[in-house]
Amino acid sequence: MSLWQNIADTLRAEIARGLWRPGHRLPPEAALAARFGVNRHTLRHATRALADEGLLYSRRGAGVFVAAQPVEYRLGERVRFHRNIELAGRVPGRSIDSVATRACDAAEAKALNIAPGDPVHAVDGVATVDHRPVALFRSVFNARLLPDLPGALAGQGSITRALAACGIADFIRARTLIKAAVADESQAVRLQIEPGGPLIRSESIDVSDGRPIERGIVWWASERVTLALDHGD
Amino acid sequence: MSLWQNIADTLRAEIARGLWRPGHRLPPEAALAARFGVNRHTLRHATRALADEGLLYSRRGAGVFVAAQPVEYRLGERVRFHRNIELAGRVPGRSIDSVATRACDAAEAKALNIAPGDPVHAVDGVATVDHRPVALFRSVFNARLLPDLPGALAGQGSITRALAACGIADFIRARTLIKAAVADESQAVRLQIEPGGPLIRSESIDVSDGRPIERGIVWWASERVTLALDHGD
Repeated sequence: MSLWQNIADTLRAEIARGLWRPGHRLPPEAALAARFGVNRHTLRHATRALADEGLLYSRRGAGVFVAAQPVEYRLGERVRFHRNIELAGRVPGRSIDSVATRACDAAEAKALNIAPGDPVHAVDGVATVDHRPVALFRSVFNARLLPDLPGALAGQGSITRALAACGIADFIRARTLIKAAVADESQAVRLQIEPGGPLIRSESIDVSDGRPIERGIVWWASERVTLALDHGD
Repeated sequence: MSLWQNIADTLRAEIARGLWRPGHRLPPEAALAARFGVNRHTLRHATRALADEGLLYSRRGAGVFVAAQPVEYRLGERVRFHRNIELAGRVPGRSIDSVATRACDAAEAKALNIAPGDPVHAVDGVATVDHRPVALFRSVFNARLLPDLPGALAGQGSITRALAACGIADFIRARTLIKAAVADESQAVRLQIEPGGPLIRSESIDVSDGRPIERGIVWWASERVTLALDHGD
């Protein structure tokens, strides 16, 4: 095994043992290079490999930090936020910042298979895991199919339960599109991450009885979440 | 419909008609605001909505640009790069920068279900669509199962064909993990994007006869590719 791989394995084991905790800064490059008796180039090779794995991340000018163990969030036809997070042994939460009923734009119309200008309920908020923000979401619902959703959301903690109260007993996810984005100032503040940090952007369509009912866009803080697909399932 | 939605719809239609082409800069904010007779705040609401849809992107200090229509890349158990891109009506390509046989690190060992230090072939390169780079890839293969892969790769343009030449007639994708990342200088140069731009990072395991043969990490330029999941399939 090469020198940098040995260093990466040592640091990986130390992180696994809890010697370096999530959010903590590693010692400066020069100090680590001296500890392992290598030059900075070799050391950087090791820390870059660990960053590639998601164990470390660097903040420009501030150093290299240990990433929190991300939640593995499984995507699939029957994805539900609360159940997914609970299955991972973590505590799910959602807070809704605003519910607005308004005319939809062209992209929303296309996703929901309605006409531009038709009414939608737009729900914006933050999803949490273990009481820390992990994602911003914007869900847009066909308001003609779900006239009472805003009232139901006020009474229920969960979108799934609010939909059930509106007569949508079941729904499935038809499609998910995935891109990446870079957090702007406002997203960074709400997610408690650094501006310019990486976000996974997922866009999904939920369908009930063959009709699209919800188009959801979620901006996930990549340092806290990994989306997982088990293709055989 | 609100004012900003009307502006967004107008710009969206103009982009669809080809009036603003991929890579071109929109007129300055003040000029666009004047054209629509709105203030900059309203205009920015519209351009931000189009950026959220992936139609526009901004470069700090340089303005707002029209994004190229991204390739939709479908993930699934039977994903193959060449076939996937061809099905989208585009021209696939791959160039291999290096093939190295070396000891694997702990993360590679875990993914391939072998021991740390066991030999792997590491293949690094660039994937292209329509002769433009869309992704960097690093594929690591179990070298004990595929001793002749480096030779086969030299003779074949495609990894799928090289695997076939090594006796792997078929393989399936078992799992994909998705994160986001921010392009560093070297990734940006190779992908011909701006440093700090968003990357989708996918990590997948390919399996043949129940044994993991390949762990692939791909860094996709998000402005050029959207990963798509059709959950019902």
